Amino acid sequence: MHPILTVGSVAFDSIKTPFGEASRVVGGAATYFSVAASFFTDVRLVAVVGDDFTAEQMRVFSGRRIDLTGLQRVPGETFRWKGEYSVDFNSRETIYTHLNVFDQFRPVLPESYRSTPFVFLANIHPALQLEVLDQVHAPRFVAADTMNYWIEGTPGELRKVLGRVDALVINDEEARELSGESNLVKAARAIQRMGPALLVIKRGEHGVLVTRDRFFAVPAMPLEEVVDPTGAGDTFAGGFMGFLASAVEITDTVVARAVIAGSALASLSVEDFGLDQLLRLTSGELHDRFAAFKRLTHFDAL
Amino acid sequence: MHPILTVGSVAFDSIKTPFGEASRVVGGAATYFSVAASFFTDVRLVAVVGDDFTAEQMRVFSGRRIDLTGLQRVPGETFRWKGEYSVDFNSRETIYTHLNVFDQFRPVLPESYRSTPFVFLANIHPALQLEVLDQVHAPRFVAADTMNYWIEGTPGELRKVLGRVDALVINDEEARELSGESNLVKAARAIQRMGPALLVIKRGEHGVLVTRDRFFAVPAMPLEEVVDPTGAGDTFAGGFMGFLASAVEITDTVVARAVIAGSALASLSVEDFGLDQLLRLTSGELHDRFAAFKRLTHFDAL
Repeated sequence: MHPILTVGSVAFDSIKTPFGEASRVVGGAATYFSVAASFFTDVRLVAVVGDDFTAEQMRVFSGRRIDLTGLQRVPGETFRWKGEYSVDFNSRETIYTHLNVFDQFRPVLPESYRSTPFVFLANIHPALQLEVLDQVHAPRFVAADTMNYWIEGTPGELRKVLGRVDALVINDEEARELSGESNLVKAARAIQRMGPALLVIKRGEHGVLVTRDRFFAVPAMPLEEVVDPTGAGDTFAGGFMGFLASAVEITDTVVARAVIAGSALASLSVEDFGLDQLLRLTSGELHDRFAAFKRLTHFDAL
Repeated sequence: MHPILTVGSVAFDSIKTPFGEASRVVGGAATYFSVAASFFTDVRLVAVVGDDFTAEQMRVFSGRRIDLTGLQRVPGETFRWKGEYSVDFNSRETIYTHLNVFDQFRPVLPESYRSTPFVFLANIHPALQLEVLDQVHAPRFVAADTMNYWIEGTPGELRKVLGRVDALVINDEEARELSGESNLVKAARAIQRMGPALLVIKRGEHGVLVTRDRFFAVPAMPLEEVVDPTGAGDTFAGGFMGFLASAVEITDTVVARAVIAGSALASLSVEDFGLDQLLRLTSGELHDRFAAFKRLTHFDAL
């Protein structure tokens, strides 16, 4: 079992879905990632919050395997985001994004973090992702997330990141845009040639596709009530990377199980608002969902 | 093993894809269905062709387990369809649809077909689907396909069909339209209440979702070269229904394997134009693709 370092956003989210509203709840990519990954391994968090992020909010991290030495606390307001989902959850409108203290965020790794073997660079400016990598000593396995905004806006810096990561976790639309290939197999091979040997393609309500040499795919769990999809991608990434970091060796078998671990956590997370379901989740419930994925997808030979 | 009866279109297709063109090749829902189903069981075809459908075209059926007693041959031209796919295969434009002899088609079952235990009603007017059902004596298992055109245009007759089938095979968009539910689990349950105990939802490049009580899902096989998707849905239906008809009993295990059988045939079919790949396919290649689906989707327990 290896510890994993993650750098990204910790935020206050306000969320409106067809099932209700949640106001000023703790969110952010690094938060979802850390809570999810902590089910499988020790997490070292690098992020920034304002002085409005109190002991009450800190409780989302407490009692978990999450090291907060790298969580900076600075004067000002925490990153705030407000989003509203359409009735069918097919689209999401961002009402506002206030970067606040995140605007000036420069990740500084505590000395105790610098030889962390697993690293996950959440979806932040590629220049910051590179700054983090420069501070880590010979990591064993590095993964990154990114988005259209950086693919279009900072392609040069993103390319540098891609040249230094073992895995990239993106969605299908981003994979097509990054590669310029509409066929996902060709897109995957093109992105692998940019650096990451392992590519994880998130397909939202259609599940996940992953490849090194061979492909492994899992459909999304059919859910009768999706209450709030916020953070599902980061939760998946946390479960996936946490599981990988907990393994002795990263084989195709381990990668496949890591995809299921991430999918199980993500499918549980969306059944309630924000982090609510993840925070009360037991390992028994996680095992049950893992088993449900097996029932959903396994079949006997011809 | 039970024989299966199918009724639907036999056509001349002209197809343009980013990979090339095929002109006036044999196609039609009932053709793809019959060829696919004949890998698993005896097929009894009910359809109509014109006198331009010669012995040469008949060869697509020959040497297979396809009974052509119910294939009417009448003066006039065979159903013709021409379609063109977009560069990324995400959309298809119908250049023309000439129903020709299909316009006056009234399915008449030969006496030898009337006690066929398995029936598949391809995507035709619900009134014709009902006419077929009225001619079959106590079928054991009936499945139907339909489309938005009938959901919107002939809802009353479609409801009558739904009340008389054991299974419905449609795509996700049609499932949402038919049920008025955007959530696929709720959509499935609503459609099941209309009649079919078994619902098969085709999701195109995202695979297939099937349910009676529990759900079973399979992602689509990632393919580097999709040459021509024409007939993929009918090929899936043929493999699925042919496999069910070949089973002693329809259990959840059998349904799951039938989904893979259909998916394997459909994924092979799209790798070449029209029926080309299906017509030269060996059972060894089909088994290999079935095994490839297992490698794509199976994982070890947590």
